[in-house]
Amino acid sequence: MPEAVKSLHVRQKRQKRRAEIVHAALSAFREHGFHATSLDDIANRLGIRKAALYHYFTDKDTLLFECHRESLAELDRIILLSARPGQGPAERLAYLLSEHVRIMTDTLEGSPLAFEVPALPPVLRAPIVAGRDRYERKLRELVAAGIAAGEFRAVDPKVVVFAMLGSINWIARWYRPDGQIKGDDLGQHFADYLIRGLR
Amino acid sequence: MPEAVKSLHVRQKRQKRRAEIVHAALSAFREHGFHATSLDDIANRLGIRKAALYHYFTDKDTLLFECHRESLAELDRIILLSARPGQGPAERLAYLLSEHVRIMTDTLEGSPLAFEVPALPPVLRAPIVAGRDRYERKLRELVAAGIAAGEFRAVDPKVVVFAMLGSINWIARWYRPDGQIKGDDLGQHFADYLIRGLR
Repeated sequence: MPEAVKSLHVRQKRQKRRAEIVHAALSAFREHGFHATSLDDIANRLGIRKAALYHYFTDKDTLLFECHRESLAELDRIILLSARPGQGPAERLAYLLSEHVRIMTDTLEGSPLAFEVPALPPVLRAPIVAGRDRYERKLRELVAAGIAAGEFRAVDPKVVVFAMLGSINWIARWYRPDGQIKGDDLGQHFADYLIRGLR
Repeated sequence: MPEAVKSLHVRQKRQKRRAEIVHAALSAFREHGFHATSLDDIANRLGIRKAALYHYFTDKDTLLFECHRESLAELDRIILLSARPGQGPAERLAYLLSEHVRIMTDTLEGSPLAFEVPALPPVLRAPIVAGRDRYERKLRELVAAGIAAGEFRAVDPKVVVFAMLGSINWIARWYRPDGQIKGDDLGQHFADYLIRGLR
């Protein structure tokens, strides 16, 4: 096998294993919380030794950071996709809220990541807080634009967006991937409810 | 001083000190989170030694439990008060939601108590979960009654009440007692928004 192909192969394998570790960490955080989860727990889920984990993540904090980075990459992606021509603030907001619910249930599998921002050491926390602020600002802009366009009643966009984020982040507290309430319906249900309150 | 008066006096003093400890614990939990707060931190806030705390609470878990008990006593109180004759489901629900916000901002001073239920050891957790379930059931009943009475559109009461609780519990994540947004207005703002979504 040529050297370049071999190194690509190794890199892909590493990426796959890295994704598996993030996935196992999210499940463990959901089931036991961040503080009660050890790197041993995560390694056990994957049937590997803790030493093998250290090839990918130096400690639990950097693993939590990686979970946050993935989640924020998804939020940044939906911010971009929400800017569709011909759509008003209410439609864009509905898109963002329902997709945010989908990220909570599918990508994060109900893991309470948003609760664990304070657990990060300050140097890792700053970029995560900045990313969450970016998303929060976008929601506020859309609420304000909806008020300006006469689509929404006059509310305080700050307070209302806090209420929206709370209701979505809280999903981690009750959602179970194998439960009765399904992710797809849930996004629509939440978007309907949270936007109707603005009419 | 007669013995009975003296013992009443001692009891009152103990109750006052107990309340001060709970208050100091709530502030510490708000500022640093439950896991990062030590009994030393709480004692320092009161200018007493940790040994003095042990006369009141055997460990941090029982102190967290006491914070929860106070919070639940308040929720039970507003459930009772919400049963006013001549009021429909929407008015009762508005009362409960705005009072719940007041409990978050005033009684708990924005402390993230609802986030710390999993931190309790199982034997202490059970009565707290039961108390929270009681409140959750009451909200669901009112949403269902409002749908039956034609005051609300047909929603899943379970999903909508999760959304309501999330938005209110999340207040602990952003509310600051010395901030611009005041507790009184906030209760009204939340109740308006969360009920309008049901119309």
